[in-house]
Amino acid sequence: MIHRLTLEYDGTGFSGWAAQPGRRTVEGELRAALDAVFPSWDGLAVAGRTDAGVHARGQVASLSAAGGPPAARAAEALNAELPDDVAVVAAEEAPEGFHARFSARSRTYRYRIWTRRTPSPFEARRALWHPRPLDDERLAALAALLPGEHDFRAFTPTDTQHDVFLRAVLDARWERDGDALGLWITADSFLRHMVRTLVGTMLDAEPERFACLLEGRPRSEAGRTAPPWGLYLERVAYD
Amino acid sequence: MIHRLTLEYDGTGFSGWAAQPGRRTVEGELRAALDAVFPSWDGLAVAGRTDAGVHARGQVASLSAAGGPPAARAAEALNAELPDDVAVVAAEEAPEGFHARFSARSRTYRYRIWTRRTPSPFEARRALWHPRPLDDERLAALAALLPGEHDFRAFTPTDTQHDVFLRAVLDARWERDGDALGLWITADSFLRHMVRTLVGTMLDAEPERFACLLEGRPRSEAGRTAPPWGLYLERVAYD
Repeated sequence: MIHRLTLEYDGTGFSGWAAQPGRRTVEGELRAALDAVFPSWDGLAVAGRTDAGVHARGQVASLSAAGGPPAARAAEALNAELPDDVAVVAAEEAPEGFHARFSARSRTYRYRIWTRRTPSPFEARRALWHPRPLDDERLAALAALLPGEHDFRAFTPTDTQHDVFLRAVLDARWERDGDALGLWITADSFLRHMVRTLVGTMLDAEPERFACLLEGRPRSEAGRTAPPWGLYLERVAYD
Repeated sequence: MIHRLTLEYDGTGFSGWAAQPGRRTVEGELRAALDAVFPSWDGLAVAGRTDAGVHARGQVASLSAAGGPPAARAAEALNAELPDDVAVVAAEEAPEGFHARFSARSRTYRYRIWTRRTPSPFEARRALWHPRPLDDERLAALAALLPGEHDFRAFTPTDTQHDVFLRAVLDARWERDGDALGLWITADSFLRHMVRTLVGTMLDAEPERFACLLEGRPRSEAGRTAPPWGLYLERVAYD
């Protein structure tokens, strides 16, 4: 049976998603919980391999398991094994052939910025603290340039593993909630560090310059990569 | 000059407000920051001496200082010295005679409950996780019994330091925001553990029984004391 799991995690205490020897990772914790709950399982896949410090509210993983609890009780059984900085928020049976990564149609990330003049202890490691004034209208104008297909090579490290830099952005907008400002962005898929480098660039760029950067410029022309602790994988869409 | 400071802190890493030898406390961290920023200061007072694990969004402290930065720059100077789980969110000059505790007219606390069937890593140590169903109407009816003057001796430990158990509740109501439920309660002052024991009792009590408990019953007749990590000192009001 194929299980589809929706996961939430606070990335602060993890060296990212992907299991690495000697490091605490989300995948490592999930594998240990799967070992405890299912007599036999394999084929663990994930929609987005988040970097160290990056959070998730709607990460999706898939795996094939024999035995163990039915889908309706899998979340509770796994949560009993998982530490409190990662949780399964939904578990369901998926159709044969479902693959968390290859079946995904789009991913939605949010990047959170805390704009108050003073820092907030509740936002430490959960948002970028940016106490200098930000022009919400300029940010909105930049976000409006994102939908469509662009060459994002300026927004990923030069020592890249990517061959293709075109990505299709389906939606992008800034939302303000008091002192918190968030960039919501949905695309078919993302290059490594893409959202963080878009945000680091948007903090300063003017629309004309930003539009130019979206058409395949060298990495050196874009801005800094914003820190990982503001980034959340919010949800993954499937057909 | 009298300084009035508004403080925010995540109580997770603190043994409460009050300085204790060998323990990490909010007061201890603030005293170290004050030593670094003001050549001379004394008379530190606080509106609410929160227990270990209890959070604050609007704690108020007062002190008298000579020299050092003017009020307009005191927050920034203190935040540069404070660790990231406590912050000064406002600093202002207060009139002679202002005392954070004795001048306070009322305190407002919020107790947060996370009601989703699955836990949230972002709510761990910031809310009580209560996955069983709660009847919002019953909770509202209980909260409606709180305003007015009552004898709260059932809601504080028996080995008490209080002499008087009458407290005047000015406002009390539950507010729901998705899976998060919060009791907002304002009173002239509070007994030790009062909000946490009110919440622990409200989770199960019926209105008739709860009304009786508000009129001076033994501690043994009330419910459990809810854990500290759901409690926030939200604000303190002054004339």
